[in-house]
Formats: sequence, C-alpha cells, structure tokens
Amino acid sequence: MTGERGNLAGGDDVVKELQVLKGHGTENDFVLIPDLGDELDLTDALVRALCDRHAGVGADGVLRVVRSEHVTSAAAMAAEAPFFMDYRNADGSIAEMCGNGVRVFTRYLASAGLIDGQTVVATRAGPRPVRIEDDATISVEMGCPVLLDARPRVSTADGALSSAGFALTVPNPHVVVAVADLGELDALDLARAPLVTPALPDGQNVEFVVRTAVDRIAMRVHERGVGETRSCGTGICAAVVATAVRDGLGPVDNLRWRVNVPGGECLVAWRPDGSLQLCGPAVLIGELELDSGWLSRVG
Amino acid sequence: MTGERGNLAGGDDVVKELQVLKGHGTENDFVLIPDLGDELDLTDALVRALCDRHAGVGADGVLRVVRSEHVTSAAAMAAEAPFFMDYRNADGSIAEMCGNGVRVFTRYLASAGLIDGQTVVATRAGPRPVRIEDDATISVEMGCPVLLDARPRVSTADGALSSAGFALTVPNPHVVVAVADLGELDALDLARAPLVTPALPDGQNVEFVVRTAVDRIAMRVHERGVGETRSCGTGICAAVVATAVRDGLGPVDNLRWRVNVPGGECLVAWRPDGSLQLCGPAVLIGELELDSGWLSRVG
Repeated sequence: MTGERGNLAGGDDVVKELQVLKGHGTENDFVLIPDLGDELDLTDALVRALCDRHAGVGADGVLRVVRSEHVTSAAAMAAEAPFFMDYRNADGSIAEMCGNGVRVFTRYLASAGLIDGQTVVATRAGPRPVRIEDDATISVEMGCPVLLDARPRVSTADGALSSAGFALTVPNPHVVVAVADLGELDALDLARAPLVTPALPDGQNVEFVVRTAVDRIAMRVHERGVGETRSCGTGICAAVVATAVRDGLGPVDNLRWRVNVPGGECLVAWRPDGSLQLCGPAVLIGELELDSGWLSRVG
Repeated sequence: MTGERGNLAGGDDVVKELQVLKGHGTENDFVLIPDLGDELDLTDALVRALCDRHAGVGADGVLRVVRSEHVTSAAAMAAEAPFFMDYRNADGSIAEMCGNGVRVFTRYLASAGLIDGQTVVATRAGPRPVRIEDDATISVEMGCPVLLDARPRVSTADGALSSAGFALTVPNPHVVVAVADLGELDALDLARAPLVTPALPDGQNVEFVVRTAVDRIAMRVHERGVGETRSCGTGICAAVVATAVRDGLGPVDNLRWRVNVPGGECLVAWRPDGSLQLCGPAVLIGELELDSGWLSRVG
C-alpha cells in the first residue's frame, strides 16, 4: 500500500515523516491522517502531541483514514464501506463515532479523489452512509437514538440553573435540558462541568437547548472529559430528539430541524422509522507536513 | 522577489495560495508566514482567521518574515538586520516585539538556510541581536527595562490575593507580584483578569512569581487582552528584574536566572549595563499549505 497516499513511513517504531490535514465541522476540529495502508502506529502519545493546541497542531481529536480491508474490526464491512474512520479523542482514547468528524472525513475522501458524491464510512459504531449535498454540506445517517427513562436533575456549577433533564444515547450518552430563552442560554456558566444527579453509568454530555422557532433550536453543550465545546454532532441529534419528545411531536417526516451551536448550524431529520440524519458543513483548513525534529521528540 | 520562498501570490487583493509554518517557544505559539518580498497584504481578517484555534490553524499570533529592505520602517536597519519581524497579535493588532516569537522567527531563518548561527532581527522595537546557542536554545538581546515608581495593588478576581505590585516596561508594560510559595501560585484564579489599582496608562501584563532558589523563579502570567498564557517572553524578563530589585540584587554579572513558566523554562541575564538577555527553546511544528477554498472564504 506504500505510496498510495499514505507516505507515513513508520519502521523502527519511529514516525519519520507525517503528512496530515486539519479540518473542522461547525468548529469541532480534527487532525486527519491519511494512512490508507494501515502503516502508522498511532500511539496515544502521538495523538496527544498532535492535538496539543500550543505545542502541536491543535485539535479536538484525530481521524485516521484507513482502507477497511486492513482493519480487523472493519474488514467485514469493506465491500459496503471501503474506508474506516479510526477516531481518537484528544487524550488518545478511542471513540466510537463523531458526527462532526465523519463529515470532515468525507470531505477529505472527496477532496483526495477517493470517492465521488457518496459512500459509507466504516466506524466503530457500524457503517454510516454519508452524502455530499448540492449545497456542499454533508449528510450522515446517524442511526436510531435510544430513549432512557431517567430524568436526572441538572444544575450548573454556579447553581443558577437546576432542572430535570432528558436522557438518551446516540449511541453515546446525553442529557438534554430545556432553558427558558436565549438570554438564559447565553448566561449559563459552563466553564465548570454541570452536576447531573444521578449521573448516567458512563457519564454524559449535557446539552442546554432553547426552541426558538417551529423548526429551530439553539444549543450549548458540555462534553464529558472535555468541557464546553463549539459543537457536538451527536449532541445536536440528542437536542432534536429531546425537544421533539418534550413538545409531543416525536419523529416526523418533512421536518428538518435547524440547530444553532456556537460553531455554526446543522440540520437534523428524525424520521418515523426512528433514524436520525445529521447534515452540516465540513471544511478542510490545510495540509501539514510535520517537522522531523518535532516528530522525533514526540516519538 | 517572487519565488524567493515567498510564493504567496497576492494579486487582485485575494490570497490564492499560502504556505505557512507553525512553531512555538515555551508553548507561546505562532503562525509564521515567509513573505520575503513583502507581497502579501496581511489583513486583520487573515490574521484572525489563521489564529482561530478551531476554524483556522490556531496560534497566539502571526510572525511575517520580510526582508527589511522592503519595509519602510525597517529599511534603515537593513544592513545590520536583514529580516523584519512583522508581529501581529491574534486579534490582528500590531505589536512591537515578542520575546518568544523572535526565537521562533530565528529558528525559521536558520532552518530555511537564510542565516547561520546568528543575526540581528529588525522589530518595531528596534534591532534585536539573536544567536543560536550550542544546546540549540536561542538567545535574544531584549534591551533595557524601565523601572516605574508605581506600586499598584494587584488582586485576583476571586479576592484570594491582594498585594503590592512592581511596575516596569520591557518595553511593554508589566506589573509583577510576589506570592508566598508554589502552592499559592498554583492555586491562583487567573481565569479572570486580575484587578490592578491604579492600572498603568496602557494596561499591563501581570506576572505572579515565587523565587524558588537562588537563581530560580516560578511564574504564571496574565496577558492584557488575552488571558492566562503558557508563557510570555517580556514577562519572564520583567519577573527577573522585579525579583532582583526586591531582593536587593539588581543587575549582576554571572547570574543567569532560570524562570519556569507553565510552557517550559527560559534563562535570563540582567547585566550591569542594564540590558536583558532572554534565552530559551524554539520549536518548528510543521509546514502548512492552506486550502484554497478556506483562503477564498477568509479573503
């Protein structure tokens, strides 16, 4: 597979050359590593160094692009989903899926001439169909949410807000809280993690939402282990589901929800079959060749 | 000058191609733009877009590298200082000088083969001699501080600390406050700006310092208009001067102060002639070719 675009040249367990890209979806940003032949040993240390916002490239996570045929867990999907998204959080830990990341991943595949307008991306959460729309946004099939019975109490760290939340998985765990209006949303103290009582077994992202029109939601999100972020793809889906249930709508045809987050806007459809489609922008910022001296200190 | 390495191709006021580098000095990070022939119109919008940590490359500031002969304010220095450092803050505003940035600037000049082990860098604060030391750190002549009579009171936003500060310019304005020990230093709330009463006319950076050994200082810094940062080159110099004066040492030969900041360590000499020399690391992270679509949206 050498030379297919993955000129990453591991060998001797030391990365000597590394070409990556940086991109973002509604300002959730990623270092994208083309490694089609699965030649790179992507260590936690390298992920952390790449994501470091001052001593590295800086990103919320890393997206490694590998042909599915080379990945044990994805090989069975390879005929349907030729590229596997190896997603890592900024701390090096493995994550199943990222709704903003998969759009950036798709933008790269198209930009590199590896796909035409659509494909299926192999992820740890299963195959995810993606499509580049006429307006250049990218839509992603996100699967079906699981609504939980829990209604944990959510309080901001400063105590200004305390309200019942709605719990669900998409498939990562979320608790969604309605707030009164945009003024209250803007004023929320999310510099510290909100308190959720009782917390979900694996923790949760917490979305604070205001329905601002028939088809429109404004939202801020606090991600577990990260803090407030500019956007969260599964959180955007969770906000739509919780709002639709709360307002007695449920999943309906012909409604595409507009969700505004600090980093931009996405559209979400929640269909009668229970499936979610997320649609939003994906931007490539540039291509980066890492300095060999920097790499040798990281490795 | 086209092709000299500055293949930036402005024209029609739209930047169509842009190759930059990212680097850092004690985790004060910069986008470095080689523009030897002064062909690039570096707008505030472009600086802000480049420095945006989620939708752009991400940095504390931009360092544009221009041959001094092309810059009106630097042309008179050109024989002595062949390269001008056009430094911009992340918000696009112009800054005179940056002690960490000038080391990264020097590292680039050497890496590109434009200088050997030493040169003089033309800055808006005047010529700054720089030298690459045997251990690969870079030393910079920072000029002489001006000690002010003011002893403004400094309080952290949470009120936990309130103490008299020592004011000086290097040449940007600083107020330095001694704290009791490393425990107190670590515990300081610098998420919000400290209060300085009365403030200096142009505002100030505030350094909180502990002398931890005969020749050693630990420091945290809050930069005006930015917030707490991982390092500040002039602040490191200011911390040394204030500590030396407070402890009755003044400028002395044969003492190189070690200053530890969250982003690393620098050495400072304050010599009997009043001049300061700052020495520290400078790292190139990688070279980046910006995406033409991204550039067109910025421009």
